[in-house]
Amino acid sequence: MDRPDIYTRLTELGVALPTATFPAAAYTMCTQSGKLAYLSGHLAKQDGIVWKGRLGETLTTQDGQLAARAVAIDLLATLHAQIKDLNQVRRIVKMTSLVNSTPAFTEQHLVTNGASEFFAEVFGESGKHARSAFGVTQLPLDACLEIELIAELN
Amino acid sequence: MDRPDIYTRLTELGVALPTATFPAAAYTMCTQSGKLAYLSGHLAKQDGIVWKGRLGETLTTQDGQLAARAVAIDLLATLHAQIKDLNQVRRIVKMTSLVNSTPAFTEQHLVTNGASEFFAEVFGESGKHARSAFGVTQLPLDACLEIELIAELN
Amino acid sequence: MDRPDIYTRLTELGVALPTATFPAAAYTMCTQSGKLAYLSGHLAKQDGIVWKGRLGETLTTQDGQLAARAVAIDLLATLHAQIKDLNQVRRIVKMTSLVNSTPAFTEQHLVTNGASEFFAEVFGESGKHARSAFGVTQLPLDACLEIELIAELN
Repeated sequence: MDRPDIYTRLTELGVALPTATFPAAAYTMCTQSGKLAYLSGHLAKQDGIVWKGRLGETLTTQDGQLAARAVAIDLLATLHAQIKDLNQVRRIVKMTSLVNSTPAFTEQHLVTNGASEFFAEVFGESGKHARSAFGVTQLPLDACLEIELIAELN
Repeated sequence: MDRPDIYTRLTELGVALPTATFPAAAYTMCTQSGKLAYLSGHLAKQDGIVWKGRLGETLTTQDGQLAARAVAIDLLATLHAQIKDLNQVRRIVKMTSLVNSTPAFTEQHLVTNGASEFFAEVFGESGKHARSAFGVTQLPLDACLEIELIAELN
Repeated sequence: MDRPDIYTRLTELGVALPTATFPAAAYTMCTQSGKLAYLSGHLAKQDGIVWKGRLGETLTTQDGQLAARAVAIDLLATLHAQIKDLNQVRRIVKMTSLVNSTPAFTEQHLVTNGASEFFAEVFGESGKHARSAFGVTQLPLDACLEIELIAELN
């Protein structure tokens, strides 16, 4: 794959990967099965704190897009902690985006673009993924957004 | 597999596959990883337009079943565009059905049968899949239903 | 894997697997593709009857944890019916937990721990999985909880 080095690309994009977080409970942030890495739903955070709120109520679509980009960066941090070398990501396979929404908010797809576009920026064509985006009643800890991911590794 | 030709079967069922749609954003309607095809969540459409509404409010369970069948046809159209020959579908593995629901609507499973039964009609035993169906607060563009799919290929 | 026999472990935990249920409609409770088993969303049950209610309204977090453990047992029963020998489970890969929630209920993760901890008790390290947990508007038959699972087999 004639794809530029991912860490160089992240630097170009001005992105510093945070330290990956670890769950308190009896689950993990990432499992591998064959060539697939399954990443747990990651809650949106701002400055390391859960990004609370509901789209259509306390947050705008633009807020949500920033939150989605932040989650995407955290997902990469988890994947880096798991596989040590993000250049081993063959492609982003599937994203599921759960948007904390009022019944009237209908822009879950635009919110989720904040994450989808980030993966395309970082991985190019191999960052393009299947995805679903939908509105949920509420998320753990009142988070505004939760995104899970499946990535294929070399 | 002694399964009849899928295109013949679609004709028998009176189903004409529409042209597959393409997303505007940085994602795709289908990715492949190994033998699995992951299809993005497809919004219900009627005559090419997003089928809006909420189950338990503006739409009945029967409406929802028709919407589910319509989404299933669109999913097949996407899969056909991706793999060119639907006879190469080994089995439908998993369906996830997101039903735009009021808090009082409890027939998401009946709505989703509209899609499940379609796949059984088309693919026979190999169309039987694992699935989840649940009520969501809202969907992109006020769609009444969104379904995603995993299919295994030969 | 130096893991104790799973049926011995279940007996130690005082867990008797119920008879697996079968769906009425055109889907199945479990499909296999390669080494992965995909389990349909299982609704919480109590004494064989759908466990109804909504978290934050008619049910507490502790109720939800018991419901989650009950679903986890039913998931194991389905997996046992499918593969005949639970010792062939290599690992629990992914859990998705759909919690019937009011817009104010923010403890979906704590509810879901009831299932996650059960799998860790039964399978040890190989029971630790990636997961997502979120609040849904409503579930089929007014169930309080629905959990789906992906497991890897030997």
